[in-house]
Amino acid sequence: MRIAVLPGDGIGPEVTREAVLVLEALGLPGLTLFDGDVGGIAYKRHGHPLPEETLTIAKACDAVLFGAVGDPDCDKLDRHLRPEQAVLGLRKELGLFANLRPAKVFAGLEHLSPLKPEIARDLDLLIVRELTGDVYFGKKGIRQNESDEREGWDMMSYSESEVRRIARVAFRSARLGDCRVCSADKANVLETSQVWRDTVIDAASAHPDIDLTHMYVDNAAMQIITNPAQFGVILTGNLFGDILSDLASAAVGSIGLLPSASVGDRKTEHGLFGLYEPIHGSAPDIAGQGKANPMATILSVAMMLRNSFGKEAEAARIEHAVETALADGIRGGDLGGTHGCEAIGAAVRERL
Amino acid sequence: MRIAVLPGDGIGPEVTREAVLVLEALGLPGLTLFDGDVGGIAYKRHGHPLPEETLTIAKACDAVLFGAVGDPDCDKLDRHLRPEQAVLGLRKELGLFANLRPAKVFAGLEHLSPLKPEIARDLDLLIVRELTGDVYFGKKGIRQNESDEREGWDMMSYSESEVRRIARVAFRSARLGDCRVCSADKANVLETSQVWRDTVIDAASAHPDIDLTHMYVDNAAMQIITNPAQFGVILTGNLFGDILSDLASAAVGSIGLLPSASVGDRKTEHGLFGLYEPIHGSAPDIAGQGKANPMATILSVAMMLRNSFGKEAEAARIEHAVETALADGIRGGDLGGTHGCEAIGAAVRERL
Ligand SMILES: CC(C)[C@H](C(=O)O)[C@@H](O)C(=O)O
Ligand SMILES: CC(C)[C@H](C(=O)O)[C@@H](O)C(=O)O
Repeated sequence: MRIAVLPGDGIGPEVTREAVLVLEALGLPGLTLFDGDVGGIAYKRHGHPLPEETLTIAKACDAVLFGAVGDPDCDKLDRHLRPEQAVLGLRKELGLFANLRPAKVFAGLEHLSPLKPEIARDLDLLIVRELTGDVYFGKKGIRQNESDEREGWDMMSYSESEVRRIARVAFRSARLGDCRVCSADKANVLETSQVWRDTVIDAASAHPDIDLTHMYVDNAAMQIITNPAQFGVILTGNLFGDILSDLASAAVGSIGLLPSASVGDRKTEHGLFGLYEPIHGSAPDIAGQGKANPMATILSVAMMLRNSFGKEAEAARIEHAVETALADGIRGGDLGGTHGCEAIGAAVRERL
Repeated sequence: MRIAVLPGDGIGPEVTREAVLVLEALGLPGLTLFDGDVGGIAYKRHGHPLPEETLTIAKACDAVLFGAVGDPDCDKLDRHLRPEQAVLGLRKELGLFANLRPAKVFAGLEHLSPLKPEIARDLDLLIVRELTGDVYFGKKGIRQNESDEREGWDMMSYSESEVRRIARVAFRSARLGDCRVCSADKANVLETSQVWRDTVIDAASAHPDIDLTHMYVDNAAMQIITNPAQFGVILTGNLFGDILSDLASAAVGSIGLLPSASVGDRKTEHGLFGLYEPIHGSAPDIAGQGKANPMATILSVAMMLRNSFGKEAEAARIEHAVETALADGIRGGDLGGTHGCEAIGAAVRERL
């Protein structure tokens, strides 16, 4: 079991450290960890946010544990040197075309949601976001137009095969629940969405157990906050998925608790290769102060064990330990509590 | 004062009728109304959702009162014949590049918001959405790609002049409040957004009274539901504005009460030419049953009087009448009440 650990910037190193300690506490045989630099720290050390050696390490492993990137010092750099480019580069280079973002309110933490408790209670959905296509990776540039002024442009597109493979991930994920998939697009305006919708419908025809519906993305944003109970899996493209998955996370109200997985179709000897990361960012304002909540990263390790190593029992042990710690009142500052990063990590380990 | 009235489909005609009765009840001299067909009804009568004669009427008027379009009968039509195309066509043909969407929780109606009351209470923002550019109006199509599969594509772009004119609308609107403007973009990924951001910054440099900030659109979606008090005006492009403005409306919790204005820079002898419409759609499921809430359309008339005719006093009379009706317990089914469309219209007129 080879795992690349890429802590990154800001609070990335401290939350990753606790997550690794939890992983090690499980005492799994044959576990080897490899460290790599990514983001602003990688730029400072190697001149690039995603150095070649980091990519080599990641590719040689069975899974990647990623902290966070983003460093105010790098804000003024050329776009291709900014920390975010490491995120995009990893997704593309590792073929991670599917992002899985569960958004579920933990029992007893309904009060942290910005939504009314009676709505928050029902929030338990999974966003399956396409991650290597769309306007993110199309041709783009800035040109002087006919009126001799600057014009920025980005090409949005999706091909049938790109849509079909992410649709299959959504169907597979929906089977772990009650088989509901809602595809969010803007087919009333975009041709990209028209191909998206046609292809999703076509892909679903081979899966009669899947209950497929379609919604325009503007309406989906409204429905996520007014009636989340209607959703099982939300399947959507890269750009809409960026917005909807963050919206759903904010609706949960505790982004310090939310993990994520990015996978493709590369199989290793243990399972599916994947990259796992907390959805919170690098939070430079509290970095290095021991105040960050490592629970999202710890839960990302659970997702890793389940998806990339087929270790369901160990994944459940971690999740149970986090839930017990929460039930016992262990709370980071983000949840209105006073426990620091190390204390939370230790509390989870004690409860494994 | 020439006003084109385009009731459209579904509940459009019934809500528009009540709004026109309210307008007429003000007894303004020199008011002339012209009717036109738009949407599915126009397709059925004239073979096109936006017939030439409707466009001619709209152009000859000082303002347009628009109901709603959308008709399930038309769902299978070719894209260019679908009701939504009338909306896009009107915006483009009439040069309506700025959409103004206030999202404010009415006093006493906090409980209708899906947000907790302590958050909902602070929701009072205006979304200024660019309406005639972006990926909505770029070149688009479906092609066979190198692998001989269908690929949908849409060109996203913004030029400096397009951004500058909408930024000015945002600054002007912000001055009616406390001068805060937050521009939402995705400048960490899109070149379109990079030009957007550079141009907004440049445009603001001539307006030192404006307090300008920038936010990525994914974060903006999170902030709207977790901390709306931080926003005055949110300035954004066509696609992101579509999502954020519907999100903000849903956060208010009473879309049957929310008006909107779309304006450009065409001046008439009375003021700025504009199109005014409720943000709710055609709601085919309740059409023709007298159940629709006309308040959003009535409030759209108020926005029209203020923006296109400089009639602040009359606009305020209408708004006050609606607020009083709400305070007196007049509630449409959408607000959990039992008052029908005509009864609500009458109640507002009585309170003018
Ligand atoms: C950092 C940025 C490029 C990235 C994205 O937009 O995909 C982030 O917002 C995310 O959602 O992981
Ligand atoms: C009908 C549709 C084309 C339109 C849009 O996306 O602009 C609608 O959603 C709106 O926001 O007015």
